[in-house]
Amino acid sequence: MSVTADLLRHVRARKPLVHHITNVVTVSDCANATLYVGGLPVMANSPEEAQEMVGLAQALVLNIGTLHTEQVEAMLLAGGRANALGIPIVLDPVGAGATSYRTQTALRLLRELTITVIKGNAGEIATLAGQRAEVRGVESGQVDDVTIPAKALSTSTGGVVAVTGARDLVVQGELMAWVEGGSPRMRTFVGSGCVAASIVGAFVGAYPEHPFEATVAALTVYRKAAERAAARNPEGPVAYRDLVYAELGRIAPEDLD
Amino acid sequence: MSVTADLLRHVRARKPLVHHITNVVTVSDCANATLYVGGLPVMANSPEEAQEMVGLAQALVLNIGTLHTEQVEAMLLAGGRANALGIPIVLDPVGAGATSYRTQTALRLLRELTITVIKGNAGEIATLAGQRAEVRGVESGQVDDVTIPAKALSTSTGGVVAVTGARDLVVQGELMAWVEGGSPRMRTFVGSGCVAASIVGAFVGAYPEHPFEATVAALTVYRKAAERAAARNPEGPVAYRDLVYAELGRIAPEDLD
Amino acid sequence: MSVTADLLRHVRARKPLVHHITNVVTVSDCANATLYVGGLPVMANSPEEAQEMVGLAQALVLNIGTLHTEQVEAMLLAGGRANALGIPIVLDPVGAGATSYRTQTALRLLRELTITVIKGNAGEIATLAGQRAEVRGVESGQVDDVTIPAKALSTSTGGVVAVTGARDLVVQGELMAWVEGGSPRMRTFVGSGCVAASIVGAFVGAYPEHPFEATVAALTVYRKAAERAAARNPEGPVAYRDLVYAELGRIAPEDLD
Repeated sequence: MSVTADLLRHVRARKPLVHHITNVVTVSDCANATLYVGGLPVMANSPEEAQEMVGLAQALVLNIGTLHTEQVEAMLLAGGRANALGIPIVLDPVGAGATSYRTQTALRLLRELTITVIKGNAGEIATLAGQRAEVRGVESGQVDDVTIPAKALSTSTGGVVAVTGARDLVVQGELMAWVEGGSPRMRTFVGSGCVAASIVGAFVGAYPEHPFEATVAALTVYRKAAERAAARNPEGPVAYRDLVYAELGRIAPEDLD
Repeated sequence: MSVTADLLRHVRARKPLVHHITNVVTVSDCANATLYVGGLPVMANSPEEAQEMVGLAQALVLNIGTLHTEQVEAMLLAGGRANALGIPIVLDPVGAGATSYRTQTALRLLRELTITVIKGNAGEIATLAGQRAEVRGVESGQVDDVTIPAKALSTSTGGVVAVTGARDLVVQGELMAWVEGGSPRMRTFVGSGCVAASIVGAFVGAYPEHPFEATVAALTVYRKAAERAAARNPEGPVAYRDLVYAELGRIAPEDLD
Repeated sequence: MSVTADLLRHVRARKPLVHHITNVVTVSDCANATLYVGGLPVMANSPEEAQEMVGLAQALVLNIGTLHTEQVEAMLLAGGRANALGIPIVLDPVGAGATSYRTQTALRLLRELTITVIKGNAGEIATLAGQRAEVRGVESGQVDDVTIPAKALSTSTGGVVAVTGARDLVVQGELMAWVEGGSPRMRTFVGSGCVAASIVGAFVGAYPEHPFEATVAALTVYRKAAERAAARNPEGPVAYRDLVYAELGRIAPEDLD
């Protein structure tokens, strides 16, 4: 039995509560995808309840896609409490590199919190590793060899770094894995990256001792769902996205062996 | 002809404007569902326009799913104006019991406003009735006999209390009804509870003199739509949700006789 | 070859980045529709990054559907920078006429910024032209002859004015065009007006020298997609909406000749 299959089984048995502080564009997609894969989502942005809510959760996802002042405050409060309680944190630095506000906020979160998994596209990860990189809005430009900034960022933060793209790279210190499969159609709808972070949140929430394995498993399950959905050739990006979500719920651990 | 059928006909003829102050996760679902069932949605969160907007509306829905300071202010302003004008208010105390911020805000809304209908899950209603209850994020734990907190909360507030679950309970003072039917698949997508509050908003907006009957009718129509959607066996939670919405629009008063 | 076909080809080649400062109800629809038609969406609401983000963009869409204080500040900052850089601005004055906050904010944006295209329904446009008009939430009442306020508003602002309805009117100074086709089903889902503004944003972003032609082309493509989707007779409003989005992506320039 594969590790991935085992972890998926564990997610569904554990039903981890994944607290999100996230953007307003894909918040509904993230909540639904968390539920489909086997977790339980809660979205709460307020500094007033950030610490109490994360105390109930098994994982915290921080996504800076539509950042604002009060949200940064909530992220720091929730993150600090998560660190104190040993609850894993997933950071999705959406658009880091596009504006200095995003770059600086992502770097501040990395400096003030212990982040378990950083998941971004090549441009975002390169930016956070201190490389100059092109990020057009929230879309990444080319990065020559993505393993270099990924390893650098993992070394400097001590966390897992996942770089999504045509295939996904997962790095932690000396550990490195590529996750293949999936479908180019994952890029046809808005939010596929945000959803990846939510799925990673569910997996690290269920398996906090092994974030590298949990991240690889989460991305493997997601790519498998994307691949199965593409094989059915749905018409248009929304129909495709909805099938990916359906497959997230349908995939059995046996399908991953 | 059933009361429910008659009320549905009335909603569609009256096309009540339902002003929502609600969360960012399911706001799109709530707007669309209001439209499909026969109402007209408007979502407006700002204290600056809360009182003026509710003055145009036939009902006000307050949902605390992603609460923040300014929104509480808008809720109190809109709610006060609704009370002054006799416009019914529906409160969805999402996550009351999970954090004290949510619990205290919901209790404050109940204290400072006259709420026409409180619609929540068992854990939320029990919390507001002063019972200790488990609420995991926004999901309810078990409550032994939900009629007890529902009656207590109805008595203390004078409002209708609706408790959603495997079947829905509606209580007002001595009146009590169970709404059966529906489908377990209603729990497979995020936001089915929020959407229920919007539909109740449309019905009490069209029929403000009889909020108990309006609430029962709203939940009956919603469960009927959910049941019809499930009977067609769509694949996956998104396809199911979309069919529920389609059925909300397709149900004819005759289907409810 | 038609101008519309040529402009669609140009949008897809140029892939304009469309910065949105928009409402929380339809933000996901706007982002997705921008992507489907051939642009690249970015949604960013914060005053902290408004000026920097718009500097990366080819167009700015301002939508007042769920307005709040900080967002107005971001709109003025982003708009001022867009004007300085010659980046076209599309304004969607959602609900102007419903509350004085919306009306006054829309008028302020028109006063302090140079707006390239104002796109609204008849009631909103009439309100901004200084006529008394009915706006029920975000739905327009009847306006006798919509060309009168449209011309007046275009003259006073110097911008293109687009009035959506059973057919769309586009006016700039002496220029005037009606865009026909489409489907009455465009009114069955929430957000079809917001999506129109996003598509206009992509087209004026790709063709900033000719905003009148770009606006006509954008609305023509959208109506064509809506018409093709309706011809396939999908069941229910969500399925219809999703097919419109699919058609936005599928329409080839040749289909418009």
